[in-house]
Amino acid sequence: MSSEKVQIRVGIVGYGNLGRGVEHAISQNDDMELVAIFTRRSPADVRPVSDAVRVHQLDDVESFVGDIDVMVLCGGSKSDLPEQGPHLVSMFNTVDSFDTHAAIPDYFAAVDAPAKSSGHVGLISVGWDPGLFSLQRLVGEVVVPEGSTYTFWGKGLSQGHSDALRRVPGVADAVQYTLPAEDAMQAARSGGRPEFSTREMHTRVCYVVLEDDADPVEVEREIVTMPNYFADYDTSVNFISAENLAREHTGMPHGGFVIRSGSTGDGADQTVEFSLDLTSNPGFTASVLVAYARAVHRLSARGESGAMTLFDVAPGLLSPRTPGELRAALL
Amino acid sequence: MSSEKVQIRVGIVGYGNLGRGVEHAISQNDDMELVAIFTRRSPADVRPVSDAVRVHQLDDVESFVGDIDVMVLCGGSKSDLPEQGPHLVSMFNTVDSFDTHAAIPDYFAAVDAPAKSSGHVGLISVGWDPGLFSLQRLVGEVVVPEGSTYTFWGKGLSQGHSDALRRVPGVADAVQYTLPAEDAMQAARSGGRPEFSTREMHTRVCYVVLEDDADPVEVEREIVTMPNYFADYDTSVNFISAENLAREHTGMPHGGFVIRSGSTGDGADQTVEFSLDLTSNPGFTASVLVAYARAVHRLSARGESGAMTLFDVAPGLLSPRTPGELRAALL
Repeated sequence: MSSEKVQIRVGIVGYGNLGRGVEHAISQNDDMELVAIFTRRSPADVRPVSDAVRVHQLDDVESFVGDIDVMVLCGGSKSDLPEQGPHLVSMFNTVDSFDTHAAIPDYFAAVDAPAKSSGHVGLISVGWDPGLFSLQRLVGEVVVPEGSTYTFWGKGLSQGHSDALRRVPGVADAVQYTLPAEDAMQAARSGGRPEFSTREMHTRVCYVVLEDDADPVEVEREIVTMPNYFADYDTSVNFISAENLAREHTGMPHGGFVIRSGSTGDGADQTVEFSLDLTSNPGFTASVLVAYARAVHRLSARGESGAMTLFDVAPGLLSPRTPGELRAALL
Repeated sequence: MSSEKVQIRVGIVGYGNLGRGVEHAISQNDDMELVAIFTRRSPADVRPVSDAVRVHQLDDVESFVGDIDVMVLCGGSKSDLPEQGPHLVSMFNTVDSFDTHAAIPDYFAAVDAPAKSSGHVGLISVGWDPGLFSLQRLVGEVVVPEGSTYTFWGKGLSQGHSDALRRVPGVADAVQYTLPAEDAMQAARSGGRPEFSTREMHTRVCYVVLEDDADPVEVEREIVTMPNYFADYDTSVNFISAENLAREHTGMPHGGFVIRSGSTGDGADQTVEFSLDLTSNPGFTASVLVAYARAVHRLSARGESGAMTLFDVAPGLLSPRTPGELRAALL
């Protein structure tokens, strides 16, 4: 790296799968350096990928004001971010992956006020859904104004549904995959603007390790009738051994499809599609967060402040290349 | 439409397939109105879709300064835009679909100077390639920094290649479709980062109507050996009747795929894909131009000026919805 190159100094708050992914992602971006990881745990209990990385108590974060350009918040949307987002943006520029869709307007407002009053940028809900899928839903509806937008998820491991399986009496361990329904995807692409029920768009596949004395018939009945999680879907339950689960089902694949189908003013059918096929969901989300951290740094350097979303970020700000390089190479 | 709604006043310069598509696209966007079409032909020879639309000589355009917010330039990249773009941006905000990839840096500079000195925005190279495909190439490489990007086109009608076929002695009429090679697309998605020759990525399919006395063997040989156009591709030639051509091959379908495949810092394979399946290429390009015309109007209203590309446009500016609506509905 040349000495003229501006290094963007990044901090990580929270070190689970996502925080670890952010550490990995920073290592793929030459214009960034990881200053420190902040945790609510005992720093000695956190093992970064690189031994050289410093780990500090989250309570000490204030002493890093001026040393960190962008803080990447890797906590959960349920309890961590609603507290940490508004607090940390009063000291740092932040980017997070807040993903409780229905609560986004409230969270935006909660981040916006301290961001504006302190002069920081707080970029919220970055990742792939919310995130790149949201962008695609926006682009789809503006370029095909008369049409329908469909979001299909999968094949993907659902952590929430896997946890729900593990709470069923008789289940020793389990994973759940969400699968998009192929025939529904084909219909969505057709331009006929079909409407689907919940059951028609996705199916759920469960791999379950039973406890020794469990009754498989009873366990399966409990699963497929569970409200909110499985009752509204075609759910298949496969009983496997603990060894098989450990061998075949430890990854965190995910992905999905955003399909916009409709017609332009000349009456022509037009279909726009975006898809992700991810073998590591947290690794990819982290990589998106880090690209947007670059944009946050640049927006802040320009004097902007307040809460923002991906919709407010010009794509060129995401790249380490200059605008001229981007025009020559990618346009 | 409520009286408070800001109407964006749009002009169209050039009225071929693309200009007609822009007229259609404006009719799908309630916040826009078409002020006039400008042509180098005799205005009486131009027949807009709507009888109510005024058609003027391009030479009269100066008298519309102050009455048009954004001018959509629908001329060709070879001779129209290099002259019209720099000239018109000195009087109006403009958006165009300049698509000679190699000449984009020069064209950008030629538009930038008069745009800046006159205080207008000149958004260049909008459409789908360059355009949405360019955006996708950018997003792909920032979210998967270690990977390869592949652009496949088709199935699509190629006007340039169809014209080349029609110049072959013995050919009465013809169309050419570019097809992406399925096996190359599968390999591109695999994460193995393969490299392809020109021949491996696309094939060309020709439908040819012969003149009465033409020798099909000789015509086919002339076609498949034609340098630049066909010699580097696997090209198939199908002889059909004039009736069949008129019945089956009058549409202007196009589309393609942008595939980014690589691995994130955690070593996981990740694939990002964007695709278009268009039954009307000019209709879709026009629709993209009109969405970006909205952004041009807003950027100009904010006081920005100069040449720009899609890379400089925050996605939220494309939508008629407010930022709050977008966050609640699409994020």
